[in-house]
Amino acid sequence: MKEIFRALALITAVFTLQASQAHTEQTKGEEEVDYRMSLYMVIAGNFHPLGAMAEGKMPFNAADAKLRAERIAFLVPMLKEAFPADSNGVGHTSAKPEIWTDTAGFDKALQLLIDKSAALAVAANSGDADKVKAAVQDTGKACKNCHDKFRVKD
Amino acid sequence: MKEIFRALALITAVFTLQASQAHTEQTKGEEEVDYRMSLYMVIAGNFHPLGAMAEGKMPFNAADAKLRAERIAFLVPMLKEAFPADSNGVGHTSAKPEIWTDTAGFDKALQLLIDKSAALAVAANSGDADKVKAAVQDTGKACKNCHDKFRVKD
Repeated sequence: MKEIFRALALITAVFTLQASQAHTEQTKGEEEVDYRMSLYMVIAGNFHPLGAMAEGKMPFNAADAKLRAERIAFLVPMLKEAFPADSNGVGHTSAKPEIWTDTAGFDKALQLLIDKSAALAVAANSGDADKVKAAVQDTGKACKNCHDKFRVKD
Repeated sequence: MKEIFRALALITAVFTLQASQAHTEQTKGEEEVDYRMSLYMVIAGNFHPLGAMAEGKMPFNAADAKLRAERIAFLVPMLKEAFPADSNGVGHTSAKPEIWTDTAGFDKALQLLIDKSAALAVAANSGDADKVKAAVQDTGKACKNCHDKFRVKD
């Protein structure tokens, strides 16, 4: 049994190292930043085709839109746990300190994204291309709203 | 409207750049590897507390176990799309070429993980700590089974 646990610990450690591309031991804050950035990456990877469909760069595909939108609606609320205090100012984060000082403002901006993502999944379930397009725009605005306030500009 | 799309494209681009820690343009294969590694990272980040609970390093928390297990059951099937041919041998991947030559073997190993992850969510929904522990071990074995065959050893 202990072997399995050792294997589990190893698997987790390997992923952490892999994702960070670092071979030195990470701090808790650094691990948290990697987790957060990975979560955003998976969200963005699924949002990208929806954006392309909405923009007419990719043909509208109702089944794919539904799949992607449901993933986004599932993943976005996970962001609520992705900003622990230890991760403030750590490593290569672009998260502004205001996230941890203006918690009410940040919670509001994140809740807007959660609500718009849920509405996007509802729209995608309708199979109506125009509804999906409008919901993709609303979700994109909610992303931008939070970035404008709480994300360091490149 | 065009502004929103430009913002969406920018958001996606920013995440891609961020997650890769690279400021040069990425190839499609590199983006795919980053997406795959991010997906594994989010899975591992949620598996980690389940492993700790199963190992007795963290007190069993039925609600948290349910939340984590349901995420894993949702995320793991997303791995089915995470190994496109363009990502074979690209960048810092640890994915062996056998994934793309022994597709039947890889699909079988991944399906085992999908099945064990689904069973883990069922176990976690029962609220029974012993059932969760056994299901965590089974899921860990399914991870290891695939890594042993299809992942480069560190």
